[in-house]
Amino acid sequence: MNERIQSVIDRIKQPDEKAMATARERQDTLTKPAGSLGRLEELSIQLAGITGEAQPKIDDKVIVVMAGDHGVVAEGVSTFPAEVTPQMVANMVYGGAAINVLSEQAGVRIALVDIGVAAEMIDHPKLINKKVAKGTMNMTQGPAMTEEQTLAAMTAGIEVVEAEIEKGLDILATGEMGIGNTTPSAAIAAVLTGQPVDVIVGRGTGVDDMGLERKQAAVQKAIDVNNPTAEDGFDVLMKVGGFEIAGLTGAILAAVAHKKPIVIDGFISTAAAMIAVQLEPKVGNYIIAGHQSQELGHELMVKWLGLEALLDLNMRLGEGSGAVLALHLVEAACRILSDMATFEEAGVAGKEEPLLAA
Amino acid sequence: MNERIQSVIDRIKQPDEKAMATARERQDTLTKPAGSLGRLEELSIQLAGITGEAQPKIDDKVIVVMAGDHGVVAEGVSTFPAEVTPQMVANMVYGGAAINVLSEQAGVRIALVDIGVAAEMIDHPKLINKKVAKGTMNMTQGPAMTEEQTLAAMTAGIEVVEAEIEKGLDILATGEMGIGNTTPSAAIAAVLTGQPVDVIVGRGTGVDDMGLERKQAAVQKAIDVNNPTAEDGFDVLMKVGGFEIAGLTGAILAAVAHKKPIVIDGFISTAAAMIAVQLEPKVGNYIIAGHQSQELGHELMVKWLGLEALLDLNMRLGEGSGAVLALHLVEAACRILSDMATFEEAGVAGKEEPLLAA
Repeated sequence: MNERIQSVIDRIKQPDEKAMATARERQDTLTKPAGSLGRLEELSIQLAGITGEAQPKIDDKVIVVMAGDHGVVAEGVSTFPAEVTPQMVANMVYGGAAINVLSEQAGVRIALVDIGVAAEMIDHPKLINKKVAKGTMNMTQGPAMTEEQTLAAMTAGIEVVEAEIEKGLDILATGEMGIGNTTPSAAIAAVLTGQPVDVIVGRGTGVDDMGLERKQAAVQKAIDVNNPTAEDGFDVLMKVGGFEIAGLTGAILAAVAHKKPIVIDGFISTAAAMIAVQLEPKVGNYIIAGHQSQELGHELMVKWLGLEALLDLNMRLGEGSGAVLALHLVEAACRILSDMATFEEAGVAGKEEPLLAA
Repeated sequence: MNERIQSVIDRIKQPDEKAMATARERQDTLTKPAGSLGRLEELSIQLAGITGEAQPKIDDKVIVVMAGDHGVVAEGVSTFPAEVTPQMVANMVYGGAAINVLSEQAGVRIALVDIGVAAEMIDHPKLINKKVAKGTMNMTQGPAMTEEQTLAAMTAGIEVVEAEIEKGLDILATGEMGIGNTTPSAAIAAVLTGQPVDVIVGRGTGVDDMGLERKQAAVQKAIDVNNPTAEDGFDVLMKVGGFEIAGLTGAILAAVAHKKPIVIDGFISTAAAMIAVQLEPKVGNYIIAGHQSQELGHELMVKWLGLEALLDLNMRLGEGSGAVLALHLVEAACRILSDMATFEEAGVAGKEEPLLAA
């Protein structure tokens, strides 16, 4: 780990217990049966702990979308050709992708980052250029990235998030684009969970049975060839990860260091979060699982993080689509905590004080 | 059934197959792997069928919140005293309840209706007065409502929704307030599903074990005393229902007759939807289950409707809170269908046409 990244990790603290206690007490005074808002109440308390604010506010919402390519696509692991990565990045620049539509609806600012697309990208104010290389190496032949590349990608993630925090950021959502990227994500998940590849590797954008076999074989070969150390998140990331995954890991670490909550998306974002938690376990307290992806191993990955997803809508698109949808719920949780009347304010009879105002 | 209600029911048609087919075709041309947005795609197609528009828009969102009281509270079925109903209605008028906070966030207009609160309510522009009576009769002694009262409450629901449609309504959410109202809702569910009361009756706002026993006994007694005919939704509604439930049944029928989608909330709203479907089975196609309530029998009720809830957040508040939260997802579905770029527009290589624009 370089100094820049280590200093970010060193800043990470446990959530603020006092703010959580204050939030919990307030929830029980609001005009509703105690606990009746279920996960919204829990979320509001978690957000209080993360931010250190007894009544956290969510005004500025940002999604970081990291785009990169993968040498492992040479193994025939994806339905779509690698050329789709730059095409979809262009689609995002011009506002036509799902993540644009969902972010527009939810009032979310998009920070779109070329961190390793295997093509010359257009120079555009809506595209942040942090390209480390034109795609990773084929991880079935050796490490996907060099140590320097991995550090560069993580640092890029930190820089992007810190720049967004400068502009205003109360919550971070994570997303990505990269043809083939469920393959390295599956490799990370298999190594960290210790589960066999056949319960982790899914169909991604929709490979057929033959494609699934090729994908499982590629993940297994990458693990066998590289022999990553499960206890060393950086080693796993470098050997069987990817640029956008490393970028998201850096982004997550930076957000946590700045006491910002993070809503992760599906399979790829969750792999990045797993690496971040492996590097610093306190990170887990700052992460909210936005949605349960349809992709095979995702449920195991969310469980490994000790989380339960907010949404389960049979989605498997990526880009950050599930995370951005879930932001509405997280914001609702904060608004409930701040904006609802208490029993006392409203003059409503509680269980303990019947007919207070009757 | 009176003429007014029958004319509404007679207007109800099957969803528009042609609009659904057009929406389905468009989904498969959008820049994402086919089917990867899961339930959002299905919702968009359902909404096309309901509205008859190949690209339905959701601009005006309305929640109807019906408030009423229940004679059956005399049986000790609730933790809170009946006085809380008018107090919570006042809280809603002044903007302090959960439903106010969630509706404000989601840009939803609230139509709050006194349909049977057991108190003189304030005269206020934010409270629609449709009071049928000051609370229902105790259903363990005989029918909860007279035939006339039931018709009046259903008609009130129709009138409220038709007035809101005049102002602009693209989607209806349903909510309610009424201490004791999980008890009649459970009775309706037990009769319509044919399930025993102990798998239907839950703890509502939080009764203890003794309270739960009293509640189960009250529901069983109401069913035994009144012997409602499961095949006759009106009979069930009159004998073991309530004013806000009848009002919501009318509201749902009116929305369906006007080709508007309906997002139902939890236990009470679902009971109202079950009555509406029992009266006219085509209604089921227009209903979206907003959330899975924590309340015991709700899962069975949602299944009886042939639906699957969008959200599952361990909530059990009512008021329409789960329905309003789910509106964000329904709106997202429509925006995805209308606003995403197609593969052709974006020049992205699809599965069938690799490298279209490379």
